[in-house]
Amino acid sequence: MINAEIITIGDEILIGQIVDTNSAWMAVELNKIGVNVHQITSISDEVGHILAALKEAEQRADIILITGGLGPTKDDVTKKTMAQYFGSKGMVVHQDSLVVIEDFFKKRGLPLTPLNAAQAEVPDNCEVLLNEVGTAPCMLFEQGHKIFVSMPGVPFEMKNLMLSKVLPEIRKRYELVSIYHRTILTVGIGESFLADRISYIENELPSYIKLAYLPKLGLVKLRLSCTKDTTEQIIAEVEHFAKRIEEEIPEYWAGNKDVDIEKAMLDLLQKHGLTLSLAESCTGGYLSHLFTQHAGSSAAFLGGGIVYSNQLKKQILGVKEATLNQFGAVSEETAKEMVEGAIKNFGSDYAIAITGIAGPDGGSIEKPVGTVCIAVANKHETVVQKFLFNNKRLQIIESSAIKSLHMLLTLLKKNKVY
Amino acid sequence: MINAEIITIGDEILIGQIVDTNSAWMAVELNKIGVNVHQITSISDEVGHILAALKEAEQRADIILITGGLGPTKDDVTKKTMAQYFGSKGMVVHQDSLVVIEDFFKKRGLPLTPLNAAQAEVPDNCEVLLNEVGTAPCMLFEQGHKIFVSMPGVPFEMKNLMLSKVLPEIRKRYELVSIYHRTILTVGIGESFLADRISYIENELPSYIKLAYLPKLGLVKLRLSCTKDTTEQIIAEVEHFAKRIEEEIPEYWAGNKDVDIEKAMLDLLQKHGLTLSLAESCTGGYLSHLFTQHAGSSAAFLGGGIVYSNQLKKQILGVKEATLNQFGAVSEETAKEMVEGAIKNFGSDYAIAITGIAGPDGGSIEKPVGTVCIAVANKHETVVQKFLFNNKRLQIIESSAIKSLHMLLTLLKKNKVY
Repeated sequence: MINAEIITIGDEILIGQIVDTNSAWMAVELNKIGVNVHQITSISDEVGHILAALKEAEQRADIILITGGLGPTKDDVTKKTMAQYFGSKGMVVHQDSLVVIEDFFKKRGLPLTPLNAAQAEVPDNCEVLLNEVGTAPCMLFEQGHKIFVSMPGVPFEMKNLMLSKVLPEIRKRYELVSIYHRTILTVGIGESFLADRISYIENELPSYIKLAYLPKLGLVKLRLSCTKDTTEQIIAEVEHFAKRIEEEIPEYWAGNKDVDIEKAMLDLLQKHGLTLSLAESCTGGYLSHLFTQHAGSSAAFLGGGIVYSNQLKKQILGVKEATLNQFGAVSEETAKEMVEGAIKNFGSDYAIAITGIAGPDGGSIEKPVGTVCIAVANKHETVVQKFLFNNKRLQIIESSAIKSLHMLLTLLKKNKVY
Repeated sequence: MINAEIITIGDEILIGQIVDTNSAWMAVELNKIGVNVHQITSISDEVGHILAALKEAEQRADIILITGGLGPTKDDVTKKTMAQYFGSKGMVVHQDSLVVIEDFFKKRGLPLTPLNAAQAEVPDNCEVLLNEVGTAPCMLFEQGHKIFVSMPGVPFEMKNLMLSKVLPEIRKRYELVSIYHRTILTVGIGESFLADRISYIENELPSYIKLAYLPKLGLVKLRLSCTKDTTEQIIAEVEHFAKRIEEEIPEYWAGNKDVDIEKAMLDLLQKHGLTLSLAESCTGGYLSHLFTQHAGSSAAFLGGGIVYSNQLKKQILGVKEATLNQFGAVSEETAKEMVEGAIKNFGSDYAIAITGIAGPDGGSIEKPVGTVCIAVANKHETVVQKFLFNNKRLQIIESSAIKSLHMLLTLLKKNKVY
């Protein structure tokens, strides 16, 4: 199997200023095309450290992907060190990159500083993979059968380069086994319970079909992968097992595409010409953002209210003063009025309302931090549930959102929307 | 300076299933006590790989902190490999750990399996730092003047062990320099322009004061760090330079604490007893979530409307049908009515409204994807600006949010709120 290593350069990660999310994303994409990630290493942007890391990685891996260490105020060190490691004779201006950089500043009506113009300079013996969405260059060096690719650390620049240039380059240069993957999205069942439930199917899998559990707060993505070269017969076999698993867990099944669950639900709503609105209190926009980060979400998603204050609960959703006084803002009664207010005022076919105590303050003995009431509704029916999430603020927000999606999915299934 | 390295063991990170958030947290805590994190390495749980990583780390660092690779179904490999590396004579049961484990299962009414009981077994030549909140042991090995500490990867167990046992142990064993850091938050100026603007101050910094640029979409965090032992004089000197930088860029200055910019703004609003509401169209809840992820945000943040559809713009914010027809949903006129509707309907002191085309669809020649109109207002004044972000959907959303914060900050400064 082809081995890759990821090296991230820059102090930001070593001082804990940023969490390295790039490497996990890259690892997922590399795995998809059959490249194994052997090691991930974060180092400082000192010459000696970069040289040592490159040397160690070269001994272990076929593909070395480097992120970070590039940028107008710091790419000097990284580029010069690369030039040294790969025995470049000097730096040259890469014309296409310069055009992108000039364009970048022109479009923004900003002057091009010498520091920025210098970003187009690269070691003379590298191949430039043109960065079309940023000013730092992407450089590919060959060393024997191994390749080293240095990319900017800005996530969207790196992702754009990986998808449009680096992964195709890897596919072209290495003979990779084409792996067939089949995803099953589930929501509302824990990993170990799911494993128990489908173990009898898992036990029947042939040795060349692997089942991976990819759990995330409230969700488990199952992935069947066939490590043999893909044929129609292999695809049919993987699909057969996928179907059996899906039939075993109809109440938790949420989709068969490798997408986020909220995207699967948007697609489902759009397919049926249905609309959705939200009334968020404790999740404070998190669920709205989950939906609207996806292109085309406006086809099904109308919008909603972020009703943090009681005043806005009354104003935007028509929650009754008496209900707030008698039961409190975090109650099944308030959640019910919120969701019915959303259906009525926003005119959507379906709605979700969430009200709870995300903490760390605001809890009481009767309603401790983590108490969340969720309601889902259509024009004819409202379902309300109360939960207690034993967790920290951000996880309570995320768990509430995922749980509300499970409730909406259940209501949709009941209404034969699938 | 004392150097540490962090090694994370386990395939979860290498296949991109989880993002390594532990290391960033550990790095922050180590930096606080003056320990430099030299490298972070993620490896698989194979014997050979673990041995190689330990050996490499030992050559570079004084303190090697290892997380992960421990757990009822997998700690065998890690513990045996540690025993091999450090020349242990065998495994012994650590009695205090066994008591914790037995207690753990008794409290949950679960049977103690042999697999779980075996977690109390550790190499005979390690010192156990008792894990009081979990079942995996924390082992400290000494090798010359160096220490190796192996901890479970479960974040709250690791954090509890670090704070209560590992950091005190490091403080006890090493003479540490205490490092003074000072942050300057800026918004609205690019890294290279900022660097140009303050270069004359940067050039005057003494060799023991370092200036780091930590850029993130639309934001640059500056950090002055003094690598000499902290004294009152050193603090005064760092503060002197920080003040000079701040005075050079009053229009971009956004705070002097190491927090996210939206948190700095919430604190500012709360300090002055002011409230904020939002009207989000193309950012779809992203800005609301930025604010509400922070504990205590409800002190200043009232909520808002996610007005994705025109219907909701009219309904929730009172945007006029005629305005939408004449100028379109993405226009300065609509943004103005949105923000003034938020002030009026939500009763806040300040408000932000954002309407734009996040793409990838929905653009036109006059209003291409990336066109965003942002309005900020208080009860007396409205400011509207139109932008063209040359970017992808998620970055257009994020850029719009950050730009709106810069506009709000500018309005607040104008009103002497700082």
